Amino acid sequence: MIIVMKHTASAEDIQQMITNVEALGLKAKVIEGVERTVIAAVGEERVAGIHSLESGPNVDEVLPIVAPYKLASRELRPEDSLVQAGSLAVGSGQIGVIAGPCSVESEEQLLATAHAVKAAGATALRGGAFKPRTSPYSFQGMKEEGLKLLAEARSQTGLAIVTEVVSPDDVDLVAEYADVLQIGARNMQNYRLLEAVGKSHRAALLKRGPSATIDEWLLAAEYILDGGNQNVMLCERGIRTFEAHTRFTLPLATVPYVQQKTHLPVVIDPSHGTGHTHLVPAMSRAAIAAGANGLIIEVHPNPSKALSDGYQSLTFDQFEETMAGCVKIAEAVDRKLGVMQ
Amino acid sequence: MIIVMKHTASAEDIQQMITNVEALGLKAKVIEGVERTVIAAVGEERVAGIHSLESGPNVDEVLPIVAPYKLASRELRPEDSLVQAGSLAVGSGQIGVIAGPCSVESEEQLLATAHAVKAAGATALRGGAFKPRTSPYSFQGMKEEGLKLLAEARSQTGLAIVTEVVSPDDVDLVAEYADVLQIGARNMQNYRLLEAVGKSHRAALLKRGPSATIDEWLLAAEYILDGGNQNVMLCERGIRTFEAHTRFTLPLATVPYVQQKTHLPVVIDPSHGTGHTHLVPAMSRAAIAAGANGLIIEVHPNPSKALSDGYQSLTFDQFEETMAGCVKIAEAVDRKLGVMQ
Amino acid sequence: MIIVMKHTASAEDIQQMITNVEALGLKAKVIEGVERTVIAAVGEERVAGIHSLESGPNVDEVLPIVAPYKLASRELRPEDSLVQAGSLAVGSGQIGVIAGPCSVESEEQLLATAHAVKAAGATALRGGAFKPRTSPYSFQGMKEEGLKLLAEARSQTGLAIVTEVVSPDDVDLVAEYADVLQIGARNMQNYRLLEAVGKSHRAALLKRGPSATIDEWLLAAEYILDGGNQNVMLCERGIRTFEAHTRFTLPLATVPYVQQKTHLPVVIDPSHGTGHTHLVPAMSRAAIAAGANGLIIEVHPNPSKALSDGYQSLTFDQFEETMAGCVKIAEAVDRKLGVMQ
Amino acid sequence: MIIVMKHTASAEDIQQMITNVEALGLKAKVIEGVERTVIAAVGEERVAGIHSLESGPNVDEVLPIVAPYKLASRELRPEDSLVQAGSLAVGSGQIGVIAGPCSVESEEQLLATAHAVKAAGATALRGGAFKPRTSPYSFQGMKEEGLKLLAEARSQTGLAIVTEVVSPDDVDLVAEYADVLQIGARNMQNYRLLEAVGKSHRAALLKRGPSATIDEWLLAAEYILDGGNQNVMLCERGIRTFEAHTRFTLPLATVPYVQQKTHLPVVIDPSHGTGHTHLVPAMSRAAIAAGANGLIIEVHPNPSKALSDGYQSLTFDQFEETMAGCVKIAEAVDRKLGVMQ
Repeated sequence: MIIVMKHTASAEDIQQMITNVEALGLKAKVIEGVERTVIAAVGEERVAGIHSLESGPNVDEVLPIVAPYKLASRELRPEDSLVQAGSLAVGSGQIGVIAGPCSVESEEQLLATAHAVKAAGATALRGGAFKPRTSPYSFQGMKEEGLKLLAEARSQTGLAIVTEVVSPDDVDLVAEYADVLQIGARNMQNYRLLEAVGKSHRAALLKRGPSATIDEWLLAAEYILDGGNQNVMLCERGIRTFEAHTRFTLPLATVPYVQQKTHLPVVIDPSHGTGHTHLVPAMSRAAIAAGANGLIIEVHPNPSKALSDGYQSLTFDQFEETMAGCVKIAEAVDRKLGVMQ
Repeated sequence: MIIVMKHTASAEDIQQMITNVEALGLKAKVIEGVERTVIAAVGEERVAGIHSLESGPNVDEVLPIVAPYKLASRELRPEDSLVQAGSLAVGSGQIGVIAGPCSVESEEQLLATAHAVKAAGATALRGGAFKPRTSPYSFQGMKEEGLKLLAEARSQTGLAIVTEVVSPDDVDLVAEYADVLQIGARNMQNYRLLEAVGKSHRAALLKRGPSATIDEWLLAAEYILDGGNQNVMLCERGIRTFEAHTRFTLPLATVPYVQQKTHLPVVIDPSHGTGHTHLVPAMSRAAIAAGANGLIIEVHPNPSKALSDGYQSLTFDQFEETMAGCVKIAEAVDRKLGVMQ
Repeated sequence: MIIVMKHTASAEDIQQMITNVEALGLKAKVIEGVERTVIAAVGEERVAGIHSLESGPNVDEVLPIVAPYKLASRELRPEDSLVQAGSLAVGSGQIGVIAGPCSVESEEQLLATAHAVKAAGATALRGGAFKPRTSPYSFQGMKEEGLKLLAEARSQTGLAIVTEVVSPDDVDLVAEYADVLQIGARNMQNYRLLEAVGKSHRAALLKRGPSATIDEWLLAAEYILDGGNQNVMLCERGIRTFEAHTRFTLPLATVPYVQQKTHLPVVIDPSHGTGHTHLVPAMSRAAIAAGANGLIIEVHPNPSKALSDGYQSLTFDQFEETMAGCVKIAEAVDRKLGVMQ
Repeated sequence: MIIVMKHTASAEDIQQMITNVEALGLKAKVIEGVERTVIAAVGEERVAGIHSLESGPNVDEVLPIVAPYKLASRELRPEDSLVQAGSLAVGSGQIGVIAGPCSVESEEQLLATAHAVKAAGATALRGGAFKPRTSPYSFQGMKEEGLKLLAEARSQTGLAIVTEVVSPDDVDLVAEYADVLQIGARNMQNYRLLEAVGKSHRAALLKRGPSATIDEWLLAAEYILDGGNQNVMLCERGIRTFEAHTRFTLPLATVPYVQQKTHLPVVIDPSHGTGHTHLVPAMSRAAIAAGANGLIIEVHPNPSKALSDGYQSLTFDQFEETMAGCVKIAEAVDRKLGVMQ
């Protein structure tokens, strides 16, 4: 931690900061600059109370030096993590492809989609049974009945099931049916949910909140890892910016940046990341080219009849074509796309 | 709903859209423009499936006409709502002031703060017992013990208690001790929590998520209202933007804008909204001048020793001075600041 | 400058960085932390090449310590600057009010507005003669003819004239007629224009670009100050964020923040900052309550006939009412609003 | 244009709006909805005064239907434009690669870079002679001497020269030496400059401003096209968002989105778009995979000695490797990378 004092700080203020730093169990090293004094607090920065240094007398700024997360950091674990869950493998050269409808709507809809996405090369099936919806007047999901249909789809196709869990109370139920527990963007900082998933034996797919910083996202992953669950995939699904022509802005530089900071694999969601069907194929290819470890794509037999997210879902044909494009890109970057375990 | 067709749309595409609109129970009115055709879908827009119109053939854009919320809208209820909870009154000319520490840390800290903020004119006491923290390594709150201290502070000062609830399972417990259930920014779209608070008899303070649109925020309020709880206060606490010198950007235009759209009162949080002690007094005054119905301000006996948010907390003296400034502004806008019920 | 090395940095990398730091004429102080090494570069940070330190071997981050501007900083000049230009005084307890139409459209429109805003308490008249317009198909301004009308308005009312200059070639012409040269948000980083205005004897009003950081804005002011022109007013007119219900997001915390960093006065533009007539009065009051040194407000005799910005212009009556509200707020913060020199 | 009236609008208000619409030469079609009335203004929307409709009585919102630009739109010109300037070809299946230093610093630096980037497959040389710099204390460029060195580099390598012009007064001078006039992000709305470039016979590379919407960017292109210059390339170089780990956020969905709206080619700048050398290779590949028509990349013989932008420049080896990666991606999307004319 670097503490930058104001140029008006007195010798007394500086002494007070040294005392404050030492009270946290850190060593204080004072650097007298030309215009102002800087104090380096050397030691473990991840202690409760570290941020209170900012409210000391005549402090201008407090600059952290180490990342606030530990278990998620590549410093702790230099090699890539490979997350496996049934047919899905993500990380370490394997690119997983999770595809399926936004919501499970019916047996017919789900099974048709499951067979179609498998045929096109997907390695897992997505489908929401518990749906967090912006409006209380929107379709809220088929709940346990939806989970049963997902299990049926797995038994027919062999595809691992990825589905969202929205409440700590539901983790056991969802884990009974699913291979991967998805934590949605809206729940990225629902810490009770993160703790419950941390205790589950199922892999987790943690979506980034639309205004979460990378540090906040990795700290959310840290909650799950700290709970004992090491099978965590990160999922970038777009951030909120002033751009209005896309639903969110999909910042693909997240991929190489995060891969440098963490050993956890990164999956890209071009469906939510753009919000428009016609932008999904290009962004799927771009994600693979940027080095993403996986894709999660919304596919629906008839998007214009979908109960949710139809405007960003691919038809079966569009998905097949998108996969064909991605396979070529994966080869160009020496990765394997969509190889089932 | 206005559906703008692409200029390449055929007569068949337009006919298809008319059919899609009518399938939702709406009437379709076609307007042939110079460059393209527009279809107005007349009727109740708030139906499941309305957004799927966007994935129809050769549709360029779909523009909603009515607000997606009903119960929260001023169209339904033209007069201002007044929310009362113990000593706190917010709305209809009454400006409530909620003050206290970020976290309940000890009996001494809490009671000293409670007496100090009451003396300075606060009408409710805030204090977190269940703390949602970005890092798993940060102080997580005193939990039920903290709630008991809050109740003790109320019995000594008469101040209504405002405290956060982070999980649906805790709503009953928190409601036993608190007058107002705060839903934090991170949980604004935790719908299970919103539903549980909707069934509570306690008033709710709903913070805006840092990247939530106004519509998303009012739809979150709609979940609570739809559950039967009509005592909802909105709280603007800053949005995430590129500005780095403040923790969040506090957009005070929210106040007059939201007051035009909804009957619910709007409280401003200048502590989180700026993230720096020295900016809180000016933004408190500005909030009142903009017409805010209340303030929620972090106050701590010794901010540099606080277990959380010290850098944005006021000392007792700073709070007293801030209140004195706000009283004058309230008079200038013909409102009453901090009158206890 | 603080250089944070990666945890993988070797002794050689650190030695290289020390060499790089010293090559810039700075002293290098090495702080060995628990997880990584930090190098403090002590000396004048504002040298060409300082940023290249970031591309050294195994550097994780480079954190600046001092503000990049000098002449604009309060460290150089602790007391507030008072900018005076004809009837307008801004800074040091004086709150200036600049009002008038977006564009000068006709003699009748301009003179009527000039008399009306003066009667309501404005201390300067705004009006665009050279208009930078987003679309080439929009009204581009009356140019020199407009400047002549502005001069006529001054001679009738005594109000100082504030008008935009969009090109270095026009500075002399505009300075012939105007008291204050406005640099618009789009031109905040048009350095040739800043240099030309820096050589003018007229005061400058420098609008913040909608995505400019505070440092970039103050560095733009530095160009003008460095050119020799010390009469610079800053103008916050809103930043671009994801908020769509306002044209821009007006971050009033800019006022107390910037006033701490610089001696230059800060004017708020609630017209562009909100983009909607009905939000202007509340944000004008809030700006004064936050401590703004001035306001610049769009007023038009008949906004629905305006050739530009009608949707954010006040009528004469609305402006009069807004001023009445602001006068009360100014009294509440012990400032004087709208006193002509 | 769709005008949405408030639900409180009277028959008189609606009649007034019809009159206002007709006064602009448009036809008004009234659609009476369940909750409110909507008026469609049919005709040419791109007329001065159209936006003033928003300030009519009891208007809630005004929604444009057609894009505000004409010459840039694909509706006007359905086929892709191919821009050619010397050795550079961009558009219609040709992917141009512009590479070179941020600033021209010396003959040795420039010529070494020119030969290196040509050998690695670049089809044009970039290098700034007139540098718009955030700080007045930074290196401002070699000006005409730099232009001469660029011309010398072209004569040695055959590479087309791309260099920035920052003032209308310099257009003729720069056009004498350069093949492509670059308009930087800070000058995207410097309309005088756009007009001057519109009259030049040299091709233009128009960078997107960091907070410009797509419409504003295409309207800036419209200024150039309207001036008579049809050789316009768009360049996405990142937008400003809350993300702090990259200098800007590079939204690659711009590529497929913009290609749908305009016939002009789109070049991606991964150097400014990320601000970090180590992110440039991945984002270069991703840009090609997304369908970009070109790349512009900063390359320097010794980035840690660069006078500007060293932290985002590639070494010769890094550029060569990046190109090798991009060639494979280009093949995977059936495009040709870096074929000189």
